[in-house]
Amino acid sequence: MPELRRDPITGRWVIIASERAKRPKDFLAEKSVMGGALCPFCPGHEGMTPPEILAYRADGTAANTAGWSVRVVPNRYPALRIEGTLERRGEGMFDRMSGIGAHEVLIETPEHDVDLADLDPPQVGEVLRAYRDRSLDLRKDRRFRYVLIFRNHGESAGATLEHPHSQLIATPVVPKRVQEEVAGVKQYHALKERCVFCDIVQEEREGRKRIVHENESVVAFAPFASRFPFETWIVPRVHRHDFGRIEDDEIAATAVVLKEVLGRLKRVLDDAPYNMVLHTAPLDGEAPADPLAPTEMHWHIEVMPRLTKVAGFEYGSGFFINPTPPEEAAEFLRNA
Amino acid sequence: MPELRRDPITGRWVIIASERAKRPKDFLAEKSVMGGALCPFCPGHEGMTPPEILAYRADGTAANTAGWSVRVVPNRYPALRIEGTLERRGEGMFDRMSGIGAHEVLIETPEHDVDLADLDPPQVGEVLRAYRDRSLDLRKDRRFRYVLIFRNHGESAGATLEHPHSQLIATPVVPKRVQEEVAGVKQYHALKERCVFCDIVQEEREGRKRIVHENESVVAFAPFASRFPFETWIVPRVHRHDFGRIEDDEIAATAVVLKEVLGRLKRVLDDAPYNMVLHTAPLDGEAPADPLAPTEMHWHIEVMPRLTKVAGFEYGSGFFINPTPPEEAAEFLRNA
Repeated sequence: MPELRRDPITGRWVIIASERAKRPKDFLAEKSVMGGALCPFCPGHEGMTPPEILAYRADGTAANTAGWSVRVVPNRYPALRIEGTLERRGEGMFDRMSGIGAHEVLIETPEHDVDLADLDPPQVGEVLRAYRDRSLDLRKDRRFRYVLIFRNHGESAGATLEHPHSQLIATPVVPKRVQEEVAGVKQYHALKERCVFCDIVQEEREGRKRIVHENESVVAFAPFASRFPFETWIVPRVHRHDFGRIEDDEIAATAVVLKEVLGRLKRVLDDAPYNMVLHTAPLDGEAPADPLAPTEMHWHIEVMPRLTKVAGFEYGSGFFINPTPPEEAAEFLRNA
Repeated sequence: MPELRRDPITGRWVIIASERAKRPKDFLAEKSVMGGALCPFCPGHEGMTPPEILAYRADGTAANTAGWSVRVVPNRYPALRIEGTLERRGEGMFDRMSGIGAHEVLIETPEHDVDLADLDPPQVGEVLRAYRDRSLDLRKDRRFRYVLIFRNHGESAGATLEHPHSQLIATPVVPKRVQEEVAGVKQYHALKERCVFCDIVQEEREGRKRIVHENESVVAFAPFASRFPFETWIVPRVHRHDFGRIEDDEIAATAVVLKEVLGRLKRVLDDAPYNMVLHTAPLDGEAPADPLAPTEMHWHIEVMPRLTKVAGFEYGSGFFINPTPPEEAAEFLRNA
């Protein structure tokens, strides 16, 4: 059973995924990315995954057979387990929690050899719609505090299977980075009675220097204090704290900009690896009756290309050195 | 001129090192690690570096010639610049600071083909003594708030030169991770009137499960909430907040344990890449007259092997998944 452990100094929770337990030799013999005939995510191979949780599929096709456009299945090697009760306990000065959660794989397309950047906007929209549908379903489980949605592109960004997919992890704690954002949004709101993300969107749209792409609903830009070269955020222009409440027209508009951003990054950076993380409000937060209320969070997508190699050091110190000013990165991406 | 920029949401400062400015093509053509005849850190090549700031050298040898055992020089491609005034200014809603600081390279040995783990303990002690000497010298510059000391081992951990070396970066802000530790130490002390690191040392020494190695002054263990497989911390048994105040006998004892830990990691993990970061009190902190006063920090060294590939995702989320329980990691390291 995996467990969560709390760092007694900073309060950060870490998952110790002992069921995936790795001995030194396992790291040295890290498997390469699996492709082709052995791919468990290709149509016709549905039996190679656990039974599907959700699928958008053609009328008349049966569950766990071909005919789907997006398919969500449990992760075969989950970081957290859905079964069991959420038990909290101490051990001396330390704090543990049982590793309760959900870990799902969202297969983005039946096609093995394409990438999210290559799909049509409507198909990208189907992926975003599945993010929303799973987020709404998972929050019915009151043990969960957050639904983390992300995708790793490229082997050095952590992808272990070629076939385009995202992952969802429902956690019984709010991840530290989300906590920090929520605290920042609240602090700014207490001071100014405005949402900091809304102010950033306005400032970037006026200044234009860091804008990568935009449409009527969504704006993509290289953030002022980018941690990584070519880091790009996709932020809705209208305030909405919870991605789960996104509407269909906003999904369509977001899909267009997401495809555009990923395509431009791919062209400029020669298909570099990246991590993409959806940031949204925690499930245990205040849920204002008005979904536009400027409290606590403003959902957005962060895309972090993996071009530099010093991430471990930066963890240890909290200190980022970015050799590419975001103004230059945005210009390259605009011109791509 | 590099500059520091503040993230308006979380308050994190990032260095935008525009003098190192990288265009997309530069990342794709990343140079491999330099060795052999072209190594600027080898004896006889002193003219290939800027003039030395500090060297421990044999009597009668001249500065910037061979004959040294440890040598510190300015980084030729500094992330921060020593020249100029520390100017803070706003730009719309954003905050900038001029990129004032120091960035030094500490060449750990004249021998090119060894590693810190292979050096004799007295030579490892010379490296630690140079850390202390530079820390004490750099803090005379009142613009600096922190001296960050670290080493990257292996190309995928960010090392760009083979010859064993550490780096020092003096910064005009306290790095976020250090701020978080200081806040955690203060919070724990407010509650218990004890140092959280001192309590951890006591708990680990009693439990023995996560101990890797120890001697009369220093203990090495895999921390309870390890973020990374085989993460190992080296912590002095007696409280001391500031590494700059370490005494010679403690340096000698720390050197023995550091060599032991790095050697065991090297054997167990087949010379895997790692990042090593020295954590110590900020320079703008309270400086208690009693160096043993349990306030604000307890210096220590964190060694983070780079075995997993998902660091970017973990940045985006603040969420760590560690597949190796620290108890198992410690056992492997104890038996190595």
